[in-house]
Amino acid sequence: MRTGCYAVIFTSRLGAEAADYALWADRIEALARNQPGYLGHDSLRDQDGLGITVSYWNSEDAIARWRAHAEHATARSLGRERFYDWFRLDVCRVTRTYGFGER
Amino acid sequence: MRTGCYAVIFTSRLGAEAADYALWADRIEALARNQPGYLGHDSLRDQDGLGITVSYWNSEDAIARWRAHAEHATARSLGRERFYDWFRLDVCRVTRTYGFGER
Repeated sequence: MRTGCYAVIFTSRLGAEAADYALWADRIEALARNQPGYLGHDSLRDQDGLGITVSYWNSEDAIARWRAHAEHATARSLGRERFYDWFRLDVCRVTRTYGFGER
Repeated sequence: MRTGCYAVIFTSRLGAEAADYALWADRIEALARNQPGYLGHDSLRDQDGLGITVSYWNSEDAIARWRAHAEHATARSLGRERFYDWFRLDVCRVTRTYGFGER
């Protein structure tokens, strides 16, 4: 995204019984977009439930504040209890970035 | 993946005329798996051609060596010339990682 920014890589497997998942996912995405320090995200999920979401932030503080958001905390609990078979989260510092073409 | 490792986030849009793309993608994936310092990867692409591939490496040197691999360099040229409408590559240091459940 931008050298010196932070990326959060969320890799997950959605379980078969993920009722209400789409509602929660939409809600959390809308909240994240309005957080201070949010720079953007990309998200894909395949038909087997494997998903990768990468969100970009301007500081570690912004990530910490978003982590502390009450509704996000509720969603994370639901994630562990009901939505995901497993997930992994990597918090990263972007040390360099480059690209090709206009997105 | 592992705190202190490195992640390369490759976000791309595959063009409509990507003949031979699948052959090249399979070849490059097989080569990457055998590179020193390769730790794993996750990759998804949707029906509109948007893709996210995250590969994990044990050092920046390992990423540099893989970048210098001749066949990988050829593939990157083809990527710019024929396969991708655009791509973006973020090289990251993983500052912390955690997860839930057994993958």
